Amino acid sequence: MLTSRVGAACFLVVGLFLSSCVSGRQREPAPERLVGIFGGMGPEATANFYAEIVRLTPAKKDQEHLPVLIYSLPQVPDRSTCIASGSREIVPYLTHAVRKLQSGGSSFIAIPCNTVHYYHADMQRAVRIPVLNMITETADAVQRQYPKARTIGLLATNGTVRSKLYEHEFTERGLKVLLPQNTTQQCCVMDAVYSIKSGGSKQMQADLLAKAANELIARGAEVLVLGCTEIPLAFDVKRSRVPVVNATQVLARAAIREHQRSS
Amino acid sequence: MLTSRVGAACFLVVGLFLSSCVSGRQREPAPERLVGIFGGMGPEATANFYAEIVRLTPAKKDQEHLPVLIYSLPQVPDRSTCIASGSREIVPYLTHAVRKLQSGGSSFIAIPCNTVHYYHADMQRAVRIPVLNMITETADAVQRQYPKARTIGLLATNGTVRSKLYEHEFTERGLKVLLPQNTTQQCCVMDAVYSIKSGGSKQMQADLLAKAANELIARGAEVLVLGCTEIPLAFDVKRSRVPVVNATQVLARAAIREHQRSS
Repeated sequence: MLTSRVGAACFLVVGLFLSSCVSGRQREPAPERLVGIFGGMGPEATANFYAEIVRLTPAKKDQEHLPVLIYSLPQVPDRSTCIASGSREIVPYLTHAVRKLQSGGSSFIAIPCNTVHYYHADMQRAVRIPVLNMITETADAVQRQYPKARTIGLLATNGTVRSKLYEHEFTERGLKVLLPQNTTQQCCVMDAVYSIKSGGSKQMQADLLAKAANELIARGAEVLVLGCTEIPLAFDVKRSRVPVVNATQVLARAAIREHQRSS
Repeated sequence: MLTSRVGAACFLVVGLFLSSCVSGRQREPAPERLVGIFGGMGPEATANFYAEIVRLTPAKKDQEHLPVLIYSLPQVPDRSTCIASGSREIVPYLTHAVRKLQSGGSSFIAIPCNTVHYYHADMQRAVRIPVLNMITETADAVQRQYPKARTIGLLATNGTVRSKLYEHEFTERGLKVLLPQNTTQQCCVMDAVYSIKSGGSKQMQADLLAKAANELIARGAEVLVLGCTEIPLAFDVKRSRVPVVNATQVLARAAIREHQRSS
């Protein structure tokens, strides 16, 4: 008798607690869908990615823009270095970050860094929400926008090039990827990327990238892919004689589409 | 006897569970200090604020930059409208956002929106971590950088002007605040701000803001404060004949200082 009364009292207390939680949640003006962004690779590229989302969202006032949670963790070890050495020390940083975005209520995750997509499967396995794939999205966008192009010039980091991230996607679609020659890759593309990350001269970076782009075009590239989120921060699209697909913009459009999908 | 064995077994299980939690935490590469940013008011201003933090951080590679958690919630009701009507409907949005940043592990919070600082006390009461005060920081910066100036021209929203946020701070320091005349405030400052929020012409916005600035300078302003985070997105500093203090940059510097303080 006493036990059943204690049990009933416990039920009542738990019930009241749960109902207060639920009503508390109803009052909370949390958005139904929240864009998760795992950034910091690099930090300026992340600011630029969010600015692209804002620019590409058809909104006429603040309230029509997308609610976004950005976790910018520049402490993630250098992606190109980890891919080259085969080190897995990077993985705990990546799983920590995507889990934090998930526990913060993100509906899905966009990651404005091409190279880190080498670890896409590790990140996707760590969470229940979708992690967009910037590389697949960009290859899709190239095929959709330039269906006649057969040779795609790629400006990307050593990590992205070495891991053949884009090569796999384009080969599957019957397209050929053209890479800068070794010296150009190192002395133009990588020097420009690290200069952007360290706040160097934009003019010098633009010149280096234009030189790499011109080499690819001279060798037959019909479309250029800016396959590193630092590159659009310095690359001058007006100097390119062939169309340019900017992976940062492609991912921004994908995030807007994904947010609208189920909202 | 049986009870004590069950008790001991329970302690063992709980102990093992807790120790696995602790060791799990030790492995987690979460940063010791995390900058929390409550953004979305407006969204472009938030992207610009984060870009300013990156630009002003003395870093030579990604890993030297600050780890940041940004919650951008553009659904927060219009600040100027709420202040004018006296409505408190905005407060649950603000407390929800700062609490989310706190539970996400932020060490302190910066809010790149001058007008919402009208509700600074509401936000500070809702969390245990410090919420930086953009208005106080900006008044401090003006006094430190231009100690001889006596008359400060203010370009800000109706909400900031009406609530005398800056006027209180500057009056306390023995300084006079000069505001644009009513028509200029409405047809230059506010029209430019809402045009920036809706993605209008940057040239037109710059012209409107220059007109308001020139009026303030003609009436005796010795320093101009850009006291709205949209204004630096269009204001052309080179067109001003007196020094300009940009509250967004002041807050970015304050966030970098606060992050370094206890790290």
